[in-house]
Amino acid sequence: MAASTLPQSLPATRVQRGWNFGPGPAMLPDTVVKRAQEALWCFEDTGMGIAEISHRSRRFLELALKLETGVRTLLEIPDSHDVLFIPGGATPHFSLIPLNLALARGTRRATYAITGHWSRLAHREARTLIDATIAIDADHDSDTRAIPELAHWSIDPEAAFLYYTDNESINGVEYPAPPAVRTPPLVSDMTANLFSRPVPIDRFDLIFAGAQKNLGITGLGIVIVRKERLHKAIAGWPSILSYGDWADSRSMHNTPPTLNWYFALLMVEWMEEQGGLPALATRNARKASILYQTIDQSGGFYRNTVSPECRSRMNVPFKLSTPQLTELFLREASQSGLFQLDGHRSVGGCRASIYNAMPEAGIQELCVFMNEFRRHAG
Amino acid sequence: MAASTLPQSLPATRVQRGWNFGPGPAMLPDTVVKRAQEALWCFEDTGMGIAEISHRSRRFLELALKLETGVRTLLEIPDSHDVLFIPGGATPHFSLIPLNLALARGTRRATYAITGHWSRLAHREARTLIDATIAIDADHDSDTRAIPELAHWSIDPEAAFLYYTDNESINGVEYPAPPAVRTPPLVSDMTANLFSRPVPIDRFDLIFAGAQKNLGITGLGIVIVRKERLHKAIAGWPSILSYGDWADSRSMHNTPPTLNWYFALLMVEWMEEQGGLPALATRNARKASILYQTIDQSGGFYRNTVSPECRSRMNVPFKLSTPQLTELFLREASQSGLFQLDGHRSVGGCRASIYNAMPEAGIQELCVFMNEFRRHAG
Repeated sequence: MAASTLPQSLPATRVQRGWNFGPGPAMLPDTVVKRAQEALWCFEDTGMGIAEISHRSRRFLELALKLETGVRTLLEIPDSHDVLFIPGGATPHFSLIPLNLALARGTRRATYAITGHWSRLAHREARTLIDATIAIDADHDSDTRAIPELAHWSIDPEAAFLYYTDNESINGVEYPAPPAVRTPPLVSDMTANLFSRPVPIDRFDLIFAGAQKNLGITGLGIVIVRKERLHKAIAGWPSILSYGDWADSRSMHNTPPTLNWYFALLMVEWMEEQGGLPALATRNARKASILYQTIDQSGGFYRNTVSPECRSRMNVPFKLSTPQLTELFLREASQSGLFQLDGHRSVGGCRASIYNAMPEAGIQELCVFMNEFRRHAG
Repeated sequence: MAASTLPQSLPATRVQRGWNFGPGPAMLPDTVVKRAQEALWCFEDTGMGIAEISHRSRRFLELALKLETGVRTLLEIPDSHDVLFIPGGATPHFSLIPLNLALARGTRRATYAITGHWSRLAHREARTLIDATIAIDADHDSDTRAIPELAHWSIDPEAAFLYYTDNESINGVEYPAPPAVRTPPLVSDMTANLFSRPVPIDRFDLIFAGAQKNLGITGLGIVIVRKERLHKAIAGWPSILSYGDWADSRSMHNTPPTLNWYFALLMVEWMEEQGGLPALATRNARKASILYQTIDQSGGFYRNTVSPECRSRMNVPFKLSTPQLTELFLREASQSGLFQLDGHRSVGGCRASIYNAMPEAGIQELCVFMNEFRRHAG
């Protein structure tokens, strides 16, 4: 059995693989990569690689069932909600949500809370389809970023939904808890923090996320949607845009991205091995706290301008005083095996994305490097 | 360098991996699987796996350029055409084509040639958006399947395009050459045979294909489209549905399925190593001919009812006389390491898909098995 001897031939050390702080595509746990390597050559005892078996085969349908069951168990998803796996990441849902949750129900009203780059983009795309009002616009470059208190939101109670981005991965802003509104129903982009902590699913009509943070690799999106919001067909619109159609086909409207599903299953199994979402949430809070402490105690050498109560535990942006210093920091970090620390091209600076797969050891190494860099370059 | 020692630890023999005749997800060349295994752990000298590096990084942009250049060279694509890589396979284009090539140009007229399952499905989806007429309907279960001569087609010369499916993978029907019409412009689904032989790209306004046959794994589609047919935005429609938008962003409208792109590049490099499309076309013709000969010389034990001039070189469907015999054939084949030979669930029977990755040795082994099975079960 050659495939089963494969993992032993791989390095146990991190000699080759550095700490990867990329925002997504993001770091995968070593064990997940090793399992994927094995399965690519030969999946279980099929005599075929995981990317080469039919999505209609018994083996793959078992895999699909394990994936859905695993996701349901980790997130404690009630029967009222369906779980869909749709190719293409998160962005398509900027359009599918207004189409399925507003237009298909005969309304053009929805309201958006803007706290950063992604919620702004979602609002812009929604406006091409519906009358999307703005509940808050807290996406400002100046001063401290914060999420206004609910009393200051302008919410249309007749709207089909209230849309917000639970974690703004570029700006590093994360809701401590979902907005405490009773109407309209909540819809949330949780691309960057789904699976990082427990979520009260029942409070949402829809949650979606691209897989490339905590659920594997790019090319796949997950949608958790209240069943009564599903519509089989939307007259005059292509069937690929209908969540109801995806639900009916059990996410196999057409040949699904099977390898991307497999990575999602490997991540689900890995999360179970880590103790599930409560354990991961504790670990993630501790990791983030160590990193923010290093930033805050740098005497202004590193700066994060997000208000403490809504600092992201997944994406930690920070700035140095000059572009030259930033460039030097990124170069020396990379030479030390600390990779992909550059901020999003729209904002510059630095950013450490520290999803589930990043262990505390990686954070510790980053903090040691940051302190040393400050001493010799500061 | 642990990653570079990985391939040597993998088996050179086929002990574990059987011959995989699946229609897609389909067999990958062993060397491609081994390269992917290596890169999953560590891509080049990045210290990160190929699925973990940013799509905006220099390394990935180099990969993207190599992929496009390789595709252009293999298919000899002229500058008049763009090459797009869009997540989700072939099916989304059943909708995107009428939208972009008809509606966006202010017409609702297009005409469809139906020769099997996939062209029928494409026509059905088009009808929800435009007035799609039928040029021919040659999708009949009875007797011999054939493609009618052009004189018998009913073509609307004012149509925005003439749509046809170059290779019907379920029914095993393939056009010997593109229909010799001057107007309207041709649009073709080449999911199951793109890259299997040279194609006169200049004769097409658009060609599309899912990647999971000759270009890697599921989750990705390729579109080759005449640039003058691109429109930046289509008023009232989501931007993800606009080919012009995909072209402007160089197929990065949002985070692309990076691992799926990498598999496509590995397949492109492998096809180059095989001598390019003329060499592959010769090999594919020989492989198909060996298999059809075994069927035709079985005294009716195996039956393929497609007219010889339009038999597919990629998908060879055949029937045995009873469901019981078919089941026994599939079971014994599988026990002999000949996998995924079952026909599509809509038609039953057997089907051998023999894309570029299937070597002549695999065909020979299948034919030996078929002859032996006929002797002991016939």
